[in-house]
Amino acid sequence: MRYRLTVAYVGTAFGGWQRQPNAPSVQAALEAALERLAGTPVATVAAGRTDAGVHADGQVVHLDLARPLPAEALIFGVNRFLPETVRVLAASAALSGFHARWSATAKRYRYRLSRARVTPPRHLPFVWPLGRPLDLEAMRAATEALVGRHDFSAFALAGGAHRQSERRLFAAAWHEAGDEVALTVVGDGFLRGMVRGLAGTLVEIGLGRRAPETMAELLRGAPRRAAGPTAPAQGLSLIEVYYPAALGGPARDEAGRSAPEL
Amino acid sequence: MRYRLTVAYVGTAFGGWQRQPNAPSVQAALEAALERLAGTPVATVAAGRTDAGVHADGQVVHLDLARPLPAEALIFGVNRFLPETVRVLAASAALSGFHARWSATAKRYRYRLSRARVTPPRHLPFVWPLGRPLDLEAMRAATEALVGRHDFSAFALAGGAHRQSERRLFAAAWHEAGDEVALTVVGDGFLRGMVRGLAGTLVEIGLGRRAPETMAELLRGAPRRAAGPTAPAQGLSLIEVYYPAALGGPARDEAGRSAPEL
Repeated sequence: MRYRLTVAYVGTAFGGWQRQPNAPSVQAALEAALERLAGTPVATVAAGRTDAGVHADGQVVHLDLARPLPAEALIFGVNRFLPETVRVLAASAALSGFHARWSATAKRYRYRLSRARVTPPRHLPFVWPLGRPLDLEAMRAATEALVGRHDFSAFALAGGAHRQSERRLFAAAWHEAGDEVALTVVGDGFLRGMVRGLAGTLVEIGLGRRAPETMAELLRGAPRRAAGPTAPAQGLSLIEVYYPAALGGPARDEAGRSAPEL
Repeated sequence: MRYRLTVAYVGTAFGGWQRQPNAPSVQAALEAALERLAGTPVATVAAGRTDAGVHADGQVVHLDLARPLPAEALIFGVNRFLPETVRVLAASAALSGFHARWSATAKRYRYRLSRARVTPPRHLPFVWPLGRPLDLEAMRAATEALVGRHDFSAFALAGGAHRQSERRLFAAAWHEAGDEVALTVVGDGFLRGMVRGLAGTLVEIGLGRRAPETMAELLRGAPRRAAGPTAPAQGLSLIEVYYPAALGGPARDEAGRSAPEL
């Protein structure tokens, strides 16, 4: 019996989603909690393998259980055994053929940064505390170029096992709230470090160190060194994962939307 | 030379604002950072002595230095020596006669709680994870009774050194945002545990365990046992402190307001 979980976590203290030998991982924490509930080892598969320090507001995970459990037990039972920084928000029986990673049609990420001279401590774990004004108009101009199918090599970290480096972005936009600005991107897939590479490059544009027009060239398979730095992990969160309607649709879709949008 | 600081902190790991023998305090952390910067012990006085686990978004603190320092040094120099959970947001020379506690004319507190079945982990340190629906209309009806001058004994924790238990609330209101609701109160003073006692009692009303009309009676000096429980510290934050215009006005007043309001 396959189940689908929506999971949120504060990534600060984790070496990333994926189980690894020398650092705590969200996967290990979740599998340990599931094992305590189910009484037997449980393997999990996540939609996006978030890197060290990256957060999730709507990660999607699947798992198979030999003995079925009520969805309520998977939420409240698992949460009892999880650290406070990881929560199962929702659980349901998965529709036939559902695979958290391979069935996903799109993911939405948000990258937050603060222009405040001093970032309030409650926001500090979730933003890049840049502390400087930004030319948001220049950043928005460069961001427009991102939508569509491009070779995002210039923004990828080494270590991703990507057979090819083309991805399609459905949407990309900056939102402003007080001292904070946030980049939201929706795409059919993301290279390792891609959102942080985009954020770091767009910030260079916002600081006047790089012209907005250079973005188009970077999107034609330029090498990593041609783009800006990788923005810090703490500003990034996986917000939502999209699935075909036949497999249950988006992970979080209060409004009944079925198409990826911001 | 007297200085005025605006300080924000995540109160989770602190035994409260005030220095104490057996727990870390915000005051001790701040005074240690000031001593490292000034090279000599520095005593601080805060507007509100927040309890263990309570947060601040806009605490106001004064301190006296024998050798003057630029305001910039007080912000960035002190922040370098503070834990990430405490930040000096602003600093300035205090106007003559300013005292962070005795000059304050009003304070604004906010109490947040979550109705979500599972509270997202990034909000968990800052809300009461109630996880249940609330009759917000009943709560609002009861909240209207709070504004004005009343005897708040029924909502005070033991341990406050209050000579008398009358306080004036200038404003009290609930705001709603998704699964979250928040009580904001502005008053000329607060008994120890008063906002949390009000929140705990209003939640009993919201859960249908107590009639909204009973609030008026509680405000006439009823004993502590007559009111509801003290809500958890983690939901509370000191948002803003107000001062007379002649002493520099509110701590945070981007809009140029001088009168306390929500």
